[in-house]
Amino acid sequence: MNSIPDEAIPLLEGRHLANLATVMSDGSPQVTPVWIDHDGDILVINTVEGRIKERNFSRDPRVAVSIHDAERPYEPLTIRGRVIEATRDGAVEHINALSKRYIGEDPYPFGQPGDQRLIVRIEPDQISYGLP
Amino acid sequence: MNSIPDEAIPLLEGRHLANLATVMSDGSPQVTPVWIDHDGDILVINTVEGRIKERNFSRDPRVAVSIHDAERPYEPLTIRGRVIEATRDGAVEHINALSKRYIGEDPYPFGQPGDQRLIVRIEPDQISYGLP
Repeated sequence: MNSIPDEAIPLLEGRHLANLATVMSDGSPQVTPVWIDHDGDILVINTVEGRIKERNFSRDPRVAVSIHDAERPYEPLTIRGRVIEATRDGAVEHINALSKRYIGEDPYPFGQPGDQRLIVRIEPDQISYGLP
Repeated sequence: MNSIPDEAIPLLEGRHLANLATVMSDGSPQVTPVWIDHDGDILVINTVEGRIKERNFSRDPRVAVSIHDAERPYEPLTIRGRVIEATRDGAVEHINALSKRYIGEDPYPFGQPGDQRLIVRIEPDQISYGLP
């Protein structure tokens, strides 16, 4: 499967947290929940410079993402891919839009002074939908 | 934090899917939802010999786990640790118990002929509860 199936799109447009896996400098895995967005088949997340996941994908762009609806948990969307861009451009507007979608608040209320937000784009290499 | 906080224990005893991250042979990450159990601070999952995650942690025991309650998504439990045991002993009884808890069915209804089930124990090295 090399594109996101139509049935899985609601997973990327609702309030479901995705789980983003990255690789630590010692080669071990790390996984953390993130808000998720997409632009066609490109997954889009938003983070802050200096977070563990950001340091990890800046060193090794290979990531994996899993997302499921708690009401339909056995139809997860799982992806392996690469971070193809991490940019400050538009990142504040983007976190505000995500905040509005996920928690109904715009602007995003949890920012800290000095946070440098990033929009991060992930290109899938492998996509699966549903359990093996 | 080096033990699982009491407040996070319900995440391991309910019907929430955990997300297990492993590392592929090329060093890239992989993440997939799993049923989760625990024995004190040891996380316990159940899989089948030959699955991608099983091949991965058999080669490199380092894994990461993230789990959250969809009703309280911003208090995730995230762990980095190592698979310390994967055994066939009791694995069928264990998947049946998990099946009963998660979907109310005992025995587990989705087994395939030839499946060799494994109980997998994960010792946490780092534990965090709640967002950074």
